[in-house]
Amino acid sequence: MKNINASIDIDHVLFRHDIAGSKAHCRMLVATGILTAADGEAILGGLDQVEEEIARGEMAFDPALEDIHMHVESRLRDLIGEAAGRLHTARSRNDQVATDFKLWTRAAIDRLDADLQAFQQALLDRAEEHADTLMPGFTHLQTAQPVTFGHHLMAYYEMIRRDRGRLADCRARLNESPLGSAALAGTSFPIDRHMTAAALGFDRPTANSLDAVSDRDFALEFMAALNLAAMHLSRLAEELVVWTSAGFGFVRLSDSFSTGSSIMPQKRNPDAAELVRAKLGRVNGAYQTLLMVMKGLPLAYSKDMQEDKEPVFDAVEAYTLSLAAMTGMVQDLRVDAAKMAAAAGAGYSTATDLADWLVRGANLPFRDAHHVTGRIVKLAEDRGAALEDLSLADMQAIDARITEDVFSVLSVEASAASRTSFGGTAPRQVRQAIKTARQALTARNSKAEHSA
Amino acid sequence: MKNINASIDIDHVLFRHDIAGSKAHCRMLVATGILTAADGEAILGGLDQVEEEIARGEMAFDPALEDIHMHVESRLRDLIGEAAGRLHTARSRNDQVATDFKLWTRAAIDRLDADLQAFQQALLDRAEEHADTLMPGFTHLQTAQPVTFGHHLMAYYEMIRRDRGRLADCRARLNESPLGSAALAGTSFPIDRHMTAAALGFDRPTANSLDAVSDRDFALEFMAALNLAAMHLSRLAEELVVWTSAGFGFVRLSDSFSTGSSIMPQKRNPDAAELVRAKLGRVNGAYQTLLMVMKGLPLAYSKDMQEDKEPVFDAVEAYTLSLAAMTGMVQDLRVDAAKMAAAAGAGYSTATDLADWLVRGANLPFRDAHHVTGRIVKLAEDRGAALEDLSLADMQAIDARITEDVFSVLSVEASAASRTSFGGTAPRQVRQAIKTARQALTARNSKAEHSA
Amino acid sequence: MKNINASIDIDHVLFRHDIAGSKAHCRMLVATGILTAADGEAILGGLDQVEEEIARGEMAFDPALEDIHMHVESRLRDLIGEAAGRLHTARSRNDQVATDFKLWTRAAIDRLDADLQAFQQALLDRAEEHADTLMPGFTHLQTAQPVTFGHHLMAYYEMIRRDRGRLADCRARLNESPLGSAALAGTSFPIDRHMTAAALGFDRPTANSLDAVSDRDFALEFMAALNLAAMHLSRLAEELVVWTSAGFGFVRLSDSFSTGSSIMPQKRNPDAAELVRAKLGRVNGAYQTLLMVMKGLPLAYSKDMQEDKEPVFDAVEAYTLSLAAMTGMVQDLRVDAAKMAAAAGAGYSTATDLADWLVRGANLPFRDAHHVTGRIVKLAEDRGAALEDLSLADMQAIDARITEDVFSVLSVEASAASRTSFGGTAPRQVRQAIKTARQALTARNSKAEHSA
Amino acid sequence: MKNINASIDIDHVLFRHDIAGSKAHCRMLVATGILTAADGEAILGGLDQVEEEIARGEMAFDPALEDIHMHVESRLRDLIGEAAGRLHTARSRNDQVATDFKLWTRAAIDRLDADLQAFQQALLDRAEEHADTLMPGFTHLQTAQPVTFGHHLMAYYEMIRRDRGRLADCRARLNESPLGSAALAGTSFPIDRHMTAAALGFDRPTANSLDAVSDRDFALEFMAALNLAAMHLSRLAEELVVWTSAGFGFVRLSDSFSTGSSIMPQKRNPDAAELVRAKLGRVNGAYQTLLMVMKGLPLAYSKDMQEDKEPVFDAVEAYTLSLAAMTGMVQDLRVDAAKMAAAAGAGYSTATDLADWLVRGANLPFRDAHHVTGRIVKLAEDRGAALEDLSLADMQAIDARITEDVFSVLSVEASAASRTSFGGTAPRQVRQAIKTARQALTARNSKAEHSA
Repeated sequence: MKNINASIDIDHVLFRHDIAGSKAHCRMLVATGILTAADGEAILGGLDQVEEEIARGEMAFDPALEDIHMHVESRLRDLIGEAAGRLHTARSRNDQVATDFKLWTRAAIDRLDADLQAFQQALLDRAEEHADTLMPGFTHLQTAQPVTFGHHLMAYYEMIRRDRGRLADCRARLNESPLGSAALAGTSFPIDRHMTAAALGFDRPTANSLDAVSDRDFALEFMAALNLAAMHLSRLAEELVVWTSAGFGFVRLSDSFSTGSSIMPQKRNPDAAELVRAKLGRVNGAYQTLLMVMKGLPLAYSKDMQEDKEPVFDAVEAYTLSLAAMTGMVQDLRVDAAKMAAAAGAGYSTATDLADWLVRGANLPFRDAHHVTGRIVKLAEDRGAALEDLSLADMQAIDARITEDVFSVLSVEASAASRTSFGGTAPRQVRQAIKTARQALTARNSKAEHSA
Repeated sequence: MKNINASIDIDHVLFRHDIAGSKAHCRMLVATGILTAADGEAILGGLDQVEEEIARGEMAFDPALEDIHMHVESRLRDLIGEAAGRLHTARSRNDQVATDFKLWTRAAIDRLDADLQAFQQALLDRAEEHADTLMPGFTHLQTAQPVTFGHHLMAYYEMIRRDRGRLADCRARLNESPLGSAALAGTSFPIDRHMTAAALGFDRPTANSLDAVSDRDFALEFMAALNLAAMHLSRLAEELVVWTSAGFGFVRLSDSFSTGSSIMPQKRNPDAAELVRAKLGRVNGAYQTLLMVMKGLPLAYSKDMQEDKEPVFDAVEAYTLSLAAMTGMVQDLRVDAAKMAAAAGAGYSTATDLADWLVRGANLPFRDAHHVTGRIVKLAEDRGAALEDLSLADMQAIDARITEDVFSVLSVEASAASRTSFGGTAPRQVRQAIKTARQALTARNSKAEHSA
Repeated sequence: MKNINASIDIDHVLFRHDIAGSKAHCRMLVATGILTAADGEAILGGLDQVEEEIARGEMAFDPALEDIHMHVESRLRDLIGEAAGRLHTARSRNDQVATDFKLWTRAAIDRLDADLQAFQQALLDRAEEHADTLMPGFTHLQTAQPVTFGHHLMAYYEMIRRDRGRLADCRARLNESPLGSAALAGTSFPIDRHMTAAALGFDRPTANSLDAVSDRDFALEFMAALNLAAMHLSRLAEELVVWTSAGFGFVRLSDSFSTGSSIMPQKRNPDAAELVRAKLGRVNGAYQTLLMVMKGLPLAYSKDMQEDKEPVFDAVEAYTLSLAAMTGMVQDLRVDAAKMAAAAGAGYSTATDLADWLVRGANLPFRDAHHVTGRIVKLAEDRGAALEDLSLADMQAIDARITEDVFSVLSVEASAASRTSFGGTAPRQVRQAIKTARQALTARNSKAEHSA
Repeated sequence: MKNINASIDIDHVLFRHDIAGSKAHCRMLVATGILTAADGEAILGGLDQVEEEIARGEMAFDPALEDIHMHVESRLRDLIGEAAGRLHTARSRNDQVATDFKLWTRAAIDRLDADLQAFQQALLDRAEEHADTLMPGFTHLQTAQPVTFGHHLMAYYEMIRRDRGRLADCRARLNESPLGSAALAGTSFPIDRHMTAAALGFDRPTANSLDAVSDRDFALEFMAALNLAAMHLSRLAEELVVWTSAGFGFVRLSDSFSTGSSIMPQKRNPDAAELVRAKLGRVNGAYQTLLMVMKGLPLAYSKDMQEDKEPVFDAVEAYTLSLAAMTGMVQDLRVDAAKMAAAAGAGYSTATDLADWLVRGANLPFRDAHHVTGRIVKLAEDRGAALEDLSLADMQAIDARITEDVFSVLSVEASAASRTSFGGTAPRQVRQAIKTARQALTARNSKAEHSA
């Protein structure tokens, strides 16, 4: 029973948040006259010492004391005596653990947001470097149309932008203080919950005490946001595995992110990419664990909820590691631009450009232009030739309205450069997107600074 | 193959969104000179007719035409001839389906938000009615402290408030138009994506064409928000099942939401509550399906993504049904206030009040007050008596500092009334919370009206 | 409420099983004297007619009658009058629905087993055809060692063998009859549960009535088996997507299983493979739904369990479709043996053979042999040469113990042919494995025939 | 990268299995003449020493050496020099890790099977003790019909029986040796895989080397079996939470499995039951993690698969703890038979018995009997009386065919005793089921002994 009941081996990482919460609570108890100033000072001083001791690794954790809250309180009693017993006035373990876990989650979100921004920076830097680098754009992993590698990287910038938005929304929504909800019903002591909320950086106190101690939405919303973030990384990881394969050879990972073989020195296994790809499983496992735990729990606190922290801690660690590895891979990868460009030009990837020319230059309805293009590509294919290697006469034999001008759209470079619609792959659009993104990052940071 | 490939039996519900998208695209093509005004008029007129035909149920869906986009275009060609083939200029099925699905999702969110608000209204009404109705507050399904039924219902108001917040955030984040991203790379036609975005109520066009056709974040974020919303309903549903059991008997569901038995007319199975409890499974199944589908997909569009719509449609229907049933149950349920109050007073539920009195009235440290309270409860338990049935002498024998005043806190009514901390269960706090909530609902609606 | 409560739109597919169960029950009631022979005959005749009517599509399903059981009984009453009301003696909807669902599941398993065997047959046929066809064996999608395509296909034969084993185990475990467990406690009528069990092909009646009506293990075990089966298909589907990409070009899917583009006739999107890859999501969604539903349900029957059938029906349909598509793809795919062989020989894929030769031929410890091999490969790489293009002198300069014999192991053909360990890729091992597999399939079928 | 790549902090628990595999491999290499007897002896001696050192906690694990295999080999080299490098002949880390993980899984299954049998024993003992103890049988948590507590416990015996069957099937299916599959293609050394398979207790070697190193079915099948086992515990845990609530009060958990409160000594929170209920989340999280990891992985080994072990280890620990807690709770729980019996008799729980009597004693069709019963119950309800408190005249006024004999079926005791159908709740059926179960357990054990 002791083994299944104790949580100290998991929740000791909450110690700073637990002590911060206790200090805020203590100061409020003094301010509202519930605690004497002397007791308050003794408690604050004692908590400082306990925090230092834990930070220095001097506290031995003991399952008999169950959780971090008891460890802190017990040590405080050793240090300052009876006054320690007054700290728990007008609160309970239920609101205390909800507060601690929210503070931890908020800090984790802030750390991840900084990591995600660093990843965006890496994407922007490489995207700028490769704003003109041609590569095949795929659908169904089949060559479809030429794009630029910079444009491709910017797709991930957008995904991360949404990831950060979700984390920011989650942070804003969780930022209500449960402290003072007590066991489940509130308290008869004349506490000031707005004061503790402000002291701990919360926007306001939670509005319902039963909800406050029963709620783990914030952890689930956080895990859901992390699922999408990990899913995005799994997609880029898959691409890295494919791109580093012998069949593609588009990129080469640095030694730091691939493992060789003593027997095959030329072999570079994209281990880091594969591990990143796998981490979505881990993060999703945490989400599913927590959702299953919460299903059908009556209000208010149930012990089931003690299963909340370990999966979240584990998922955050797994994702953080993934993100660092991916950031490093993006920063370090070496691009084989020649192979990319060659692949971009293969497979009649400019057939759409030909069709579009027929619409624009020869006024064919789009569906008819498609049909004519199909016949021209078939002809080229039968001859084993590229589109631009066909003669004008060859093309005119299929549709007489075709003119010399058509050749201006058949090269890979022309194709990419022509896609100037907003969000399109034309290098100047890509550069514009990068510029806009850099401004947004800067604006966000400066806003964050001002609001801090 | 035809069976696995066609999606028309699923995606035909998108027809209004598909046609709205086509109209916006058509108007933009005319405005930018890509299409003649005459063609534009023919197309718009034709689309109106197609929409009416489908709405009247006159279109026969045919797997050979695969999806809703093809059905609409094919019928348009029947109606207006060659001009129909010009509509698809500068777009592709990839951006078209992303646009349609986003429009459907946005509309679904708006419908659900209205349903959730109606549920909040029902909760507020019943909470106000029961702001003073005493019931046992549970932790671990054990009687802990008295609360009011109104307070308990307001906990669910808070959960729904967060649910609506998540849906609103999801809506805001998805509200970027993929239209004009074309197959994956953008287009060389001089389209105006801001114009189509505005026409369709989007805030702006998506910033990257590869991302735009590869992204299903919006569906996953929507499903994640629905998971939490369904989890909340599962908790209330569990409570209804427990509360309607013979052991509790706190509430009675109306005939509409329970099933009887021809053999046992007194039996009222809480079928609707059980079905609501189960629906979290369904919603989560949709989420897991979609996350699994998206894992490790290389950019841009892959056919795997065609598996996106059916689970989402199914989950939305399941949740909508659940929510309507739960709203009805809350509106109709009959409360047995006497049973609730009796249960609230059993089990020494005011022991915490006694302990708090010892802290306040006798200046004991909280932990010591706990200990003294334990001894007094033990004495009462041994005598088979309630706390308030002990004599002052009995109590003083345990701690001499106890005075007559202690009896003022031992009743259930006094206990609940005393918990006046912000968010606490005291009836006046509950009424205040209800008032604040009503104001927030009104403000939100009026803001929504103004912005509409 | 009617919408959330009725299940007829889902469970009508159970009608044959429901009627089969009713017939067995009726015959037993007559045999035990609980029903008169005349009533029995009337009921059996009536049930025949109801079955035919439903099979002919003549029954209109009405949510007011809730489920398939009520539809059958109601129609029976129309046809034969009062005797219909005697059929439900000594049973209840709870044991009836458990029986129906088990019968449906058992039949679904039998159908899937036949489909899986057909897939194995397709794998064996193509494996035999390609027992000598060389291809690169990958780890980390990097070329590792040469294998044969037949060997690769036989890996999937093994996976399917385990899938069939899991289905067989599931079938054996579920094959206990719930019929006669009645509502939850058994019955006081002198029924013979062994008789109905035997009549319905069950091995025995279930041993505990409470368990019998509360149990959905069989559905979950079935879904878990299907998850693994779908996971296996997702792996082969991924390989097909990669192999049909421009970078690899190892195989070409037939027209039936790929979609072209009117604009790019050379493009063959592996749509069917992508859809198969995605179906694991669907099957897993069903599993998660059902597991979530069952979590924490008290005994015996709860209405939550009505959510059991739709996800299972849906998953079975999704998987069946996937499997048929994959079987067709394997049967029809065209192999580009030249490209495969060329890729097999690239990347120093026989480096391990060189190392093994050093161990065998020059008695180096394996780890040292690895090191020497690494130096030789490095030399070849620096020269841009293949291993077999190095001279003996070149190699001896690195390790003097190398002799002319080393060249016998450096070709791709020699490498594959040498791996003759049990289960290895040497063509004769592959042929032996195919032979063993064919015998196992035949033995299993003949055993199945005998036991039928 | 080192942090994400190294697995030693997870896989060091495999050390005994790793060394057992190495010993079997070494002996086989000697037997087939690939290794000299002298080298073989040195290696075996060295491995013994390494195993002892690790068992004594003397080995320092170092992320630079990545995994347990490298740690063992590196230490072996320290101890015996060059010969250590010969151990890895004809194998690779890929087949080695698959072998180790299978051996660990097999051992875990064996341990769990013993634990499950102990739980069954506890259920049988308490069921026998309570074969006559009446309690309400619930459907929808509403009182339906009387059952015995022994019968209820035997329902869980049946669930565990199926759980053990699934584990046994999983064990039988996994019991094929991957060793000798080498990296992916088998080996050219003349190894004897049947010999190593036999030495390690496997039934045979795996039949395909690519499959052998790519397969994690065994881990997923194990996790799926554990999901059902944990789901069963979640149901009993939910019942314990409900039964220990103030509303029911059927059972009291021992002090070891509940936590009190210093303030409310009468409070006994069913913490252990709640934690058991929650553990399904954890086990399912592991399953989902692993399934997500395996989705769409091309053959053969990919690094993603390194994510396989941690969730499995974690889930096994979580479930083992749950099971031990539940076994203890069942052994120790105190039953309040009076409360159970009183609840069993409330709510007209014998109405079905009355209806059955009408069918049997008055020859009414079942559906009509239902209707009559409904009217009688309504009458009793209106009078606030129990069924047996109505007079014969009262009943005859509703249906004249009712005779004095009806009173023989209206008591709770008579109801339970009458349900003598196979698997029914009649005490003598329950005793028979217990007897059969005890024989099955003994037979299974003796069979296991003989085969061992």
